[in-house]
Amino acid sequence: MPKINAGRLLSELRRFAQFGAYETGVHRPTFSREDMDSRRWLALQYEAVGLQAHIDGVGNVFGTPLSKRRSLLIGSHAESENHAGWLDGALGVVYGLEIARSFAETPDCAGLPIAPVAWADEEGHYLSLLGSRSFIGDIDEAEIDRAVNIRNGLPLREALQAAGLVGLPRSLLEPERYVGYLEAHIEQGDALEASGNRIGVVTSIVGIWQYSIIFRGVQNHAGTTRMAIRKDAGLAAAMLAMNIADRFPTVAGPSSVWTTGRISLEPGAPSIIPGKAEVLFQFRDSEMAVLERLDLVLREVVEETVIKTGCRAEIERTETGRPWHMDSAFQEAIESAAMRHAPGAHVRMPSGASHDAQVVGRKLRAAMLFVPSIGGISHHWTENTHDADLVLGCQVLADAAETILRGEYR
Amino acid sequence: MPKINAGRLLSELRRFAQFGAYETGVHRPTFSREDMDSRRWLALQYEAVGLQAHIDGVGNVFGTPLSKRRSLLIGSHAESENHAGWLDGALGVVYGLEIARSFAETPDCAGLPIAPVAWADEEGHYLSLLGSRSFIGDIDEAEIDRAVNIRNGLPLREALQAAGLVGLPRSLLEPERYVGYLEAHIEQGDALEASGNRIGVVTSIVGIWQYSIIFRGVQNHAGTTRMAIRKDAGLAAAMLAMNIADRFPTVAGPSSVWTTGRISLEPGAPSIIPGKAEVLFQFRDSEMAVLERLDLVLREVVEETVIKTGCRAEIERTETGRPWHMDSAFQEAIESAAMRHAPGAHVRMPSGASHDAQVVGRKLRAAMLFVPSIGGISHHWTENTHDADLVLGCQVLADAAETILRGEYR
Repeated sequence: MPKINAGRLLSELRRFAQFGAYETGVHRPTFSREDMDSRRWLALQYEAVGLQAHIDGVGNVFGTPLSKRRSLLIGSHAESENHAGWLDGALGVVYGLEIARSFAETPDCAGLPIAPVAWADEEGHYLSLLGSRSFIGDIDEAEIDRAVNIRNGLPLREALQAAGLVGLPRSLLEPERYVGYLEAHIEQGDALEASGNRIGVVTSIVGIWQYSIIFRGVQNHAGTTRMAIRKDAGLAAAMLAMNIADRFPTVAGPSSVWTTGRISLEPGAPSIIPGKAEVLFQFRDSEMAVLERLDLVLREVVEETVIKTGCRAEIERTETGRPWHMDSAFQEAIESAAMRHAPGAHVRMPSGASHDAQVVGRKLRAAMLFVPSIGGISHHWTENTHDADLVLGCQVLADAAETILRGEYR
Repeated sequence: MPKINAGRLLSELRRFAQFGAYETGVHRPTFSREDMDSRRWLALQYEAVGLQAHIDGVGNVFGTPLSKRRSLLIGSHAESENHAGWLDGALGVVYGLEIARSFAETPDCAGLPIAPVAWADEEGHYLSLLGSRSFIGDIDEAEIDRAVNIRNGLPLREALQAAGLVGLPRSLLEPERYVGYLEAHIEQGDALEASGNRIGVVTSIVGIWQYSIIFRGVQNHAGTTRMAIRKDAGLAAAMLAMNIADRFPTVAGPSSVWTTGRISLEPGAPSIIPGKAEVLFQFRDSEMAVLERLDLVLREVVEETVIKTGCRAEIERTETGRPWHMDSAFQEAIESAAMRHAPGAHVRMPSGASHDAQVVGRKLRAAMLFVPSIGGISHHWTENTHDADLVLGCQVLADAAETILRGEYR
């Protein structure tokens, strides 16, 4: 049985958080100096475990075992959101490193090849899930040519140049070389904490359906236009958000979530009745049937809003993500390990967020493990997880890795 | 009795609309070439009626009678909103010119001095009500130094330079030279049309109270944060707008209007629960008691929203305009003329919009007349008024001017 080194794990997690340290979190945008420093540091650590390390043309860092046997990829993404937490992504990356180390140190595990990996730009500073999508062959050069930093507009090509990645090939998955892929991640919500659980065995990653809903009323003078004759597009947008809040709970699944992320009124001046309103709306669920039901209700609610306000509406679905289900044997391997190390404190649960596992999972068997987020805080520098949970999660994942690799080669 | 020349009035209105003609309206921003051309043309027309014409340091155009008797100012603003209507402002300016002409042509009115005027930038391309405020001494050089074009940031000083106005003095009101001020304007709403009236005798200009209301919730991940624990600032903003729509009608006055002109959610991303929402809200009424009641209800509704959503709220009143009441004798002069020329088709009404009359009215007796806006359309190039109403409004204002001037000197 592999035994991870708890002190070393915590120390390496904290070492990794020094790349771009910000308050008690990190600011390590993809391809920034801090991000590239962290990737080069990882490559050195991979080599020190006896792996062949390389950084590919989009910044993915691979530690490749010398063994001819099929290996198990374990990792996550190395960069952070802006001014965000120290564990989002980094947790899974450092787990991969620690598990590779502990396997190398455990005589009866030393022959089981662990391939740690750190993906680039899962957070989408340029392109969401860039590294894992590149690895499975889902991105062509034209898409990279077009991509720019979503905040400052810097072309991805220029960022790759500045990061010293130009000329390096993009590594492409050869599926026959791998048994599968495991990823650990902080939950980013409070479901584990609220239920007193310490390990989440991820069953599925939700499908995200996203909409642009535009209301068109009549733009007019806010002083001279009587209330009775107004067609106020802004009021229609507000009514939509409130009607969704009323109706969705009656048809949603137990894990459904929905969010109005943006409301833009035009012209947006204090003395002009908005003639146009755009609403960005999304919902997520792990079951197609629920997603389709929510879609139907959304369209009903938009229609009701049109009738009540006299505004016209256009509704466009801009994203129709399919839920993605984890490999069931891999889930069982994680669950068995959790039963050993945290009896009664583990739970199967869907992931409400996107992860590299849903990309790699299109080509390899894959599964994920969650550890609790204190207070459910995510994408903020106060994000954190108890040390005991950090250690527990790594041991559970190490055990699951052993089970999976032995199952394959026994 | 002065008799206006209907054909000449309509022809001059159409001539004036050629300065910056745009579709069936005009695009004549303050201090643009088209705006300055129109002002120079006006000065020539004033001179042709035997008035001393001059353009002052902020672009106001004055036609000063040679008579030593106190004169009656009649006018409005010459510039337009962007891509807007041909009558907003221009109507009152051309009425002033036509009334000066018809008085000069009418033997028994020739001794009654009419002083036509065209104010600058009532529309606020740089500073709302700039010209009339400058005239009554309400603007100092520092405020002009600071002002910039609200759309392109061009400093007002540079615009004045480009317009050839640098070095010209700003004309200051000498109250003893005037009997008062009359302004005609399109209604900009549909109250006259909807009630079958052709002349509005303006009783007051509404007070505008404006608010910035900020809700602060908890910004979080839109996928991993359960619905039950969210504090969604965007939902609070939507709820506020809907609750205002429910509550205000029960306490508002018959002419009250209220508008949510802007809703900004932060960070405004589709996958992030808004942590902050800012709402720009205003209401208008001509009675202080109503304004105070609406203020109270708004604060109650904000408090209810806080309780229902768990968000915090800050409410700041950024504008507290007092309603301004027209001179009652001047109102009677307009109403008497309306009874003569449009029996049963005139009504006393408040103005929901701001006008130069509320500024000049702080120093001189002043009143306003409205003509109907077809379909209530305003600040759009399709704005229009029936020719018969254009002619009627001018004759009513001419009669009122005579009454006022004779009342003063009889």
